[in-house]
Order: sequence, then structure tokens, then C-alpha cells
Amino acid sequence: MLFPRSLLLSVAALAGVTAAQGVSTYVNPAVPTGTPLPGNYTGPLRSQVHYSPPTGFMNDPNGMFYLNGVFHLYYQYNPTGLGAGNQHWGHATSKDGYTWENQPIALFPPEERVYVFSGSAVVDVNNTSGFFPDQDNGVVAVFTLARYYEDGSSGPQTQAIAYSHDEGYTFQYYDGNPVINSTSTQFRDPKVIRYGDQWVMVVAYSQEFVVAVYTSPDLKQWTWASNFTDHGLLGAQYECPNLVKMPVRDRDGAVVDEKYVITISLQPGAPLGGSVTQYFIGDFNGTHFTTLDAATRLTDFAKDNYAAQFFYGVEGNPINLGWASNWQYAGQVPTGNNEGWRSAMTLPRVNYLTKTAPRIGWTIVDEIYDPKPIMGESLKTATDMGNGSITVDYADVESNALYIEANVTGLDVAKATTFSTLNLTFTSPASGESLRSGFYFGGDNPFFVDRGQLRGFDNVFFTDKFSVADVYYDSNAPGQKPASWSMKAVIDRSMYEVFVGGGRHAGTVLLYPTQPLTVVNVAARDLPAGARVSVAVWALESTWAGQADEQGTVLGNVTTATTTTTSGKAMGS
Amino acid sequence: MLFPRSLLLSVAALAGVTAAQGVSTYVNPAVPTGTPLPGNYTGPLRSQVHYSPPTGFMNDPNGMFYLNGVFHLYYQYNPTGLGAGNQHWGHATSKDGYTWENQPIALFPPEERVYVFSGSAVVDVNNTSGFFPDQDNGVVAVFTLARYYEDGSSGPQTQAIAYSHDEGYTFQYYDGNPVINSTSTQFRDPKVIRYGDQWVMVVAYSQEFVVAVYTSPDLKQWTWASNFTDHGLLGAQYECPNLVKMPVRDRDGAVVDEKYVITISLQPGAPLGGSVTQYFIGDFNGTHFTTLDAATRLTDFAKDNYAAQFFYGVEGNPINLGWASNWQYAGQVPTGNNEGWRSAMTLPRVNYLTKTAPRIGWTIVDEIYDPKPIMGESLKTATDMGNGSITVDYADVESNALYIEANVTGLDVAKATTFSTLNLTFTSPASGESLRSGFYFGGDNPFFVDRGQLRGFDNVFFTDKFSVADVYYDSNAPGQKPASWSMKAVIDRSMYEVFVGGGRHAGTVLLYPTQPLTVVNVAARDLPAGARVSVAVWALESTWAGQADEQGTVLGNVTTATTTTTSGKAMGS
Repeated sequence: MLFPRSLLLSVAALAGVTAAQGVSTYVNPAVPTGTPLPGNYTGPLRSQVHYSPPTGFMNDPNGMFYLNGVFHLYYQYNPTGLGAGNQHWGHATSKDGYTWENQPIALFPPEERVYVFSGSAVVDVNNTSGFFPDQDNGVVAVFTLARYYEDGSSGPQTQAIAYSHDEGYTFQYYDGNPVINSTSTQFRDPKVIRYGDQWVMVVAYSQEFVVAVYTSPDLKQWTWASNFTDHGLLGAQYECPNLVKMPVRDRDGAVVDEKYVITISLQPGAPLGGSVTQYFIGDFNGTHFTTLDAATRLTDFAKDNYAAQFFYGVEGNPINLGWASNWQYAGQVPTGNNEGWRSAMTLPRVNYLTKTAPRIGWTIVDEIYDPKPIMGESLKTATDMGNGSITVDYADVESNALYIEANVTGLDVAKATTFSTLNLTFTSPASGESLRSGFYFGGDNPFFVDRGQLRGFDNVFFTDKFSVADVYYDSNAPGQKPASWSMKAVIDRSMYEVFVGGGRHAGTVLLYPTQPLTVVNVAARDLPAGARVSVAVWALESTWAGQADEQGTVLGNVTTATTTTTSGKAMGS
Repeated sequence: MLFPRSLLLSVAALAGVTAAQGVSTYVNPAVPTGTPLPGNYTGPLRSQVHYSPPTGFMNDPNGMFYLNGVFHLYYQYNPTGLGAGNQHWGHATSKDGYTWENQPIALFPPEERVYVFSGSAVVDVNNTSGFFPDQDNGVVAVFTLARYYEDGSSGPQTQAIAYSHDEGYTFQYYDGNPVINSTSTQFRDPKVIRYGDQWVMVVAYSQEFVVAVYTSPDLKQWTWASNFTDHGLLGAQYECPNLVKMPVRDRDGAVVDEKYVITISLQPGAPLGGSVTQYFIGDFNGTHFTTLDAATRLTDFAKDNYAAQFFYGVEGNPINLGWASNWQYAGQVPTGNNEGWRSAMTLPRVNYLTKTAPRIGWTIVDEIYDPKPIMGESLKTATDMGNGSITVDYADVESNALYIEANVTGLDVAKATTFSTLNLTFTSPASGESLRSGFYFGGDNPFFVDRGQLRGFDNVFFTDKFSVADVYYDSNAPGQKPASWSMKAVIDRSMYEVFVGGGRHAGTVLLYPTQPLTVVNVAARDLPAGARVSVAVWALESTWAGQADEQGTVLGNVTTATTTTTSGKAMGS
């Protein structure tokens, strides 16, 4: 749906940007202001418990923060196309981490051919910026402005800020931008955290493989502090760095230490092709990050989790979500031509660090953020299925989305064979297609996912098979606690997210069947005596269905621009 | 073909092991000594210009050295099965790097349930070891002995040596083994080089993610010098480290510096699943290796090149070859059940370091070792094919193997679209299967290989799609030399090896069609004006066909054990 040009121009005139301060924005006539774009979330590939934009193309999550009980998610957004370009900051809010309400676009280009690229946001409780003399809930967004010339070539990327008096629903550009100037065409994606009485930014000099650390007292004046350079896999560009404090937990869950983590997304040039995110564990002293070892670790064993960001303002275990796609095929996936949208975010994940047996070592643990708000009917529970199997036909589940847990205990790997497996297979009886995944308990103890038996998307970069080794936790060594295998998974139409080994490994996998997958079979085979297998399958409830009007359209927060602030706050409080 | 037990025992008694020194070997009754195993190299999946064992299962290359014009290749060998186990050192020799003559097994287990694992070999020109009072061509092999207990559990892995008076055809175990003792079950794969007047060993403490450096004056007494720990991707184990000196060349090929490289193979836990090899560039002072950066780089963008080793005794550009497989499926590939063998080695590759534009940076360059010995008829040459295509039917090529070069120059990437491609597609008209690969000239400039349209092997770990970004060399930046794309590839029945970007990226891909691929199409599409495309296709000559007897059996060097030495030297000189 496109608004008439005349309406758009008048709506644009109402948008909350401060012409009075000499800072204007460029509103493409095809982009509405002050009201969200409407979306239809009923397509057979449209995820039901994940965030995806109402229409158009989405990429990186941006500006994520948590304030007064509301998660704010912004995102790289092209509201006028099904591929990247014309970048804005889309916006959605959620009180439960799953049910997202679409909000009006939060940041428009400051001028034509200057796009709002990725960045972050903070809550300036103490009014260090001076933007918020009368409030302790001021929000400042910090992001990259990317200039393109008329011939399409790249101009400088600089770092800019905008501030919000209404908890992030509307922003005004700072009139002193850029806050970090540059002549580089590859300098972007600032992520800001609070450290002591300072602000700390990590930002990428992408093609120099540098994550630069800057500090600031007020979010306006930034001082370079250090570079974190040439670490890990380089690919061809660094993007979207994050710096985050994370608790270290022992195997009983007790906090025994805390460390900092730097995540770096790289694109292109990932080992599996395209985009991937790696991380480094270490210490941070306010200006310098020091790794605890020279290892590089990946956040995901599959191919569809990029540019994840951690919410500002979350205490304890940090929470992240990522862009569930890969630049190799993000602009080609069939959701675009079939349903008018491209890209969803991953589920929100709760994170901490742990260190287990040598063959796993230091790792970030990913736990699914409390899924209670989306949990539906229990479809099947098997508490000790032995070398048996269960089959669940979920064709009647309206969301076509499931939550599954599987646990294996008491399994002696020394007695397992190469045929000892626990397989989860999702099939479409209509088309014969299937998504295969499962555990092997012999050899390298891998968990695998194979989307190669689906036929809805033929693309030479759409890799079919993913796996990760050593997915058990605790030890099979003599005299020690026997190993346990665990899996939690969400399948959501075109998305499959699995968390194995107690969350020590996560895999995010897009999938495009030609017909919906509606049957899941879980089968244990050739397990040695003593192994106990439990499996449980639940339906999930769509977070979008309840927001749709009679025509099936999700309008989002459609209060007018002049009342957005109040309404937005009401929604969030 | 299996020898009768009685014959084997008598042959074993003749084998060149020194019972006189109290060091005996264990000869499995099913394994011949003093003569190579015979092999049939005519199967439709059997590679014709690569080394593969006559029968049985092969893994890591071992003990590689070059002496008096002969390349010696040893390899982890199970002569009695089609999966790993019962490890010996198989042996083959070549004067041209391609035509390999099978030799008798070089190292047998020293006792039952103690296996000869991976290691290396050196030429002890100055008789530092004392084994060679009367010769300057003594060869010492340095390797891991791995003990297994009767219940199948692992015992210690220790480092041992054996010496050869006949340039590597037969070995005697040193009676002072082990030369490095250990109680660890995960301590293996010593690689020895000469540095100054010392021997230097790198060896893996696999599960501690340590490459230890040891030094020795005589190959018998080893002193620990340093550890290189927790670098890069860890997977679950480090294996098969190499330390090698490499020239640094500028883009014109001139040597401008020299560096050392440490390669580490890791298994399981590679990003693509299973096995992969990474490397680190830096300096070595005889005891310590220091990296020039904290980056990790991979030797291959696909999944089938593991545990590569560099030949000892090669001056100038080092030469390596690797095991062309992956532990995730090495024991399941269809060559075993169909043809009685599993695993081939990669082509030999000549290596140097270079540093190009920022988006590529430091990298090892892989050049195919001079292929003249295998080059056959020129099948097609197109010097400026524009947006056209060529098709070559090579059903008449007896080897079913091709060498292909493609070059693109003068292409302005700013004018390329997402449809600008150069695709190479190999098909089987009989089955409709195809192997797809090619360049994209827009966006991330990837090269891809897709083996997902072949149906000869269904395995959940047999990943189908591989790609690498930025495969051009030189720059597309304004005012600089335009980018060039180049590809050299060998397709050899069940193997495809591609070298793109002037060898800056290498991909090794196993493939299993149900029917032979016999047609190749090379098609350029949507290239902007100015782009020049040249393509050339040659037949390759089988290196095995000429060694076969009338029954099609390759016997190898079948001179008796007592004359092996002389004959072997004659073959090699």
C-alpha cells in the first residue's frame, strides 16, 4: 500500500523534526510519517512469533534499549523496496519480548541521499547530554550517516546523534552533527554503553578491520581511546561491533565472575559464505579491551544470524537479538515476491558466559527469553521414549509454529554407535519436503540441520547443511557426571532456531518449503541401554494474529503524529 | 585382493625391521609387507590425476619430503578396511608431482594395538642422529605412536622416530623410542623442520589447543621451547600443525620478505562442520612463533582439504598437499562400497604469501604445481567470448578429467549488475545432474561452487554450497589498475579443485554424481562493455592408466623386499 504523494507531504510536515533548529529530514514521498506502515502477517512464510517489518526490507537491529518495562527495537528499514537501500530506522516496541507493536518510522534521512545506517541508543538518565533538563528518561540514538553521491558512489560515513523526549518514539537530530566526523566511506555502526561516569562507543573502521573505542562525557564530544584490530576472521569487512558486560556462570548457574565480550559481524567473507558474527572474551578497563585468549568464536553454527545487538538498560544477563538473514540471499528470499516483506529478527536470547569441558571451553550461552507469552497448547509429551518415536501432526495449529524440547540423559557415549541418533524431521505431507535435524551420539557428537530437502528457494548461496560438534554438556570422562544432551527449538514457518547443549550452541536457519511443514517426527535409534529420552512439543500462539483488523491487516500504533508521544508512552508504561 | 595368511607371515619375516635391535613390528595377517597392495584405478569415481591409495582407507599425508628428484608421500593408511583404524604409513613416490608409484607400506605398527599416527620426515644430511655414518641421504621419520587398550579405550600418545638408509623406502624403529614420552591420550602429529643448526618440532596437545615447539640437536633428544596456544578457531581439537618458512611476494611476483606460517588443522568443530585447516602468519626465532596479527585465516573455502603438510627439502616456494576429505563423511563416501577405496590427496600446490588490497589483505597463494605432466589435448580456447558461452562435450576424454582456465579483465565492477556472471556448469546428460560454479561480478564479488545438484551421496553433513568473496585481484578503485578475475580448475571425476583470484583463494570439493559429468558449459552473462573473457579447456591424461596391467590392476613397485632399496632408488633417481 502506498500513500498518495499529497498526503505524504502533509504528514511529513507534521513529523516531529525540528525545522526550528535548522535540522530537517528528507521524506521520500512514498514513505509515511507519523504512522506505521500497515502489514499483512498471514502469509505462509511469515513468521508468527518473531519480529518482521510490516512490509518492505529490513536488516540490522538498531538502537535497542529497555526502559520502563518496554523493549524498543529499531531496525535498518527500506520501506519502499524489497532489497536494501533508502535506509531509515523502523521501530517496534514490546512489553514481553515477543509481541511487537509496529511504531512509526523513528529516523528519516536528514537529507536526500544521506541514509541512516546502523547504530545504538542509550538512556541519558543524568542528562549528561544537556538535551533533557527536565527528565530522567531521555533517549539518545547514536548512528552512522552515510552519504551517497548522485552517481551512486559512496561518500563519507560519519557518526551522528538524535535525541528523544518521549522515550524513543520520536527523535530530533542534534544540530551539532556529526559528533565524529570522517572522510572514510567505511566507518560505521556505533554501539554505546555506559562505563563508570563515561559513555563508551565501539565503532568499526570496516575495511581496516578495526573496532575503535571512543569515550565521551556527554554523547557529543568523543575522544578516541584505542583500537581493537585484525582479530579473528576478517572476511572483507567488520561491521556492527558490540561491547557488552556478561556474567560468567558455573554449571550450576551461579555467577562466579564477569567479563566483557566484543562481538564483530563480518560481511562478506564468512566461512560459510556471506555474513557471520564472531566474538572475543576479555576484560575492559574503560578504554582498552584485552582478550583472555587469541581464539575466535562464532555466535551461530548456521548462516542466518547477523549483526545481533544487545539491549541497553538490561541488568544481569544481557539480552540480544540479531538479523535472521545473510547478505548472500537476503534480497532474494521468496518472502519478498510472495508476501511483500523480507527479513525477520531472531528470537530474543538471554546470554551469559560459561566454561565447560576442554572440548567446549569458553562460550556464550544462549537461552530463549522467557517464552511464556507465546506458549500454546501442549501437543505431545514423551518422558522416556526409549528407542521409539513420536509423531505430531500440527496442521491444525493456526500459527504453524512449534516449541520443542528434547533431552537425553544417562547415555554412555562409549556404548553409542555411529547409528545412535535422535532425529527431528519436519515434513509437508502435501509436497513431500522435509527439514531434517538431530543428534548423533557417536564420534564427534554433532547436531545437524539440513534444509536441503526443501524446494521453495533455489539460490547458489543458500547452503543446505549445518552442524556443530560436541553438543553435550558435562563430561563423559570416567568418574564424572554423565553427559547430557538438550535441545530447545522453535520452528516458525520460514524460521528454525535451535539451542543445543544447554544453549552452548545456537543455530538460526531460514527455510522455504513450497508447502507448509505440518508434521514433526522425533525418533531415537540405536541408543545404548540406560539412555533416557524425553520430548515435549507445544503449539505457539501467533503474536500478530491478535493485532490484525478484519481485513487481516496489522496497523500498529496508528495514533496521529501529534499524539504519538503520549500514546507511545501509554503503550510502553 | 587379500594375500593368504601363510604367505603374509613369511613375507613379514622378510620385511626390513630390525629384530636384531629388539624392535619388532606387528604385521596384521591381512597386510602384505615388502610389496605394495594392488589397486584398480578404473572406477568412475576414481581420481586420475590425484593420488589415492590402491585399496582401503587413507587419511592424512605424512612424512613428506623431496630428495634427489623424488617426492615421497606417506599417508595414514588402513589397508584392511574402508574406514579409519589399523593405521600404517602407506607410501608412494613421484618424480613429477602427479605420477605416483605405489610403494610397499613403509611403517607398520610396532606392536599390536599401537598405531602409527601422523608425522613428518627429514633428511639428516649431516648425520646429526648418528644413524647414518656413511651417507648424507639418511631419512628420519618422526611420528606419533598411539596405544589403544583391549577394550578400545585410548592409551598414551607418544612421539617416536624411525630411520631409513634407503631414502625412505624402508624404515627401522629407533630402539630408544619414545623420543618424547607422555601420558596424554591427545598429543600428536609432530612436524619437524630444520632451523639453523637445530631441528624444530611443532606438535599438538590436541585438546588443550596447544601447538608446542620442541628443539633437538639430533632428533632423539627433544627440549620443550614454547607453546602457541588458543589461537583462532578452536573447534574441539588441534591436529597436524605445520611450521613453514614462506617467501612474501609482491604483485609482480618479486620476493620482498619472508615469514613463517603455522597451520593448524582442527577437527571436529569447523565452521562448515567437521574438519578445516587455519593458518597464522608471523615470525619464528628458533624457539618462539609470533603472529603479525590476531587474525585467523583458512586454507580452503570449501570443506575437503584437511591436514595438509609441506614437503621437507623444497627450496624457495614451499609445496603442500592435503587430505581431500572431511571426517564428517570420509568413512561414508560412495567410493568405498562402489570401488573399494576411500580418500584422495589434493593436487600439489606451490605456496607463497602476499598482501593485496585491504579487502583481501595477507593471504597464502596456492598455485597448482606445474601441470605439464598431466596436460592432454586442448579441447577449446575462447579468447574474447563476450557475453557468450562455450560448450565442451568431453565424453571421449578417457580420464574424464579436465583442466580449465578462465580470465576476465577490463571489467568495471561499478557497471556490473547482480546478473553479471561467468558460470561454469558441468553436467551429465545421462542423469541430468550438474555441478555449478562461477563468478558474480556485482556486490561482494563471490565465487561459488554448488554440488547440491548431484545425487550420488546423501549424507546430512555433505554440505552443498561453498563461496568466497572478493575473488578479484588488484583494485577497482579509481585511478588504480582495474581488477582481474582468474580461475584455474581441475575436475577429476569425484574431485573439483578451483584456484581463484590468482590463487588467493582455493576450494577443494568432492563430488559424487550417479553418472559421469561429461559436458562443461562456460557462459558469460550481462558483462558490462569493456570486459574481456578468455576461457581454455584441456583434457588431462590419467597418471594411473599407464601403470595398469592387462587386467587393469596397478601393482606399484613389486620388487621383493630384499631388493626394494635398490629398486626404489632406481625409481626415484
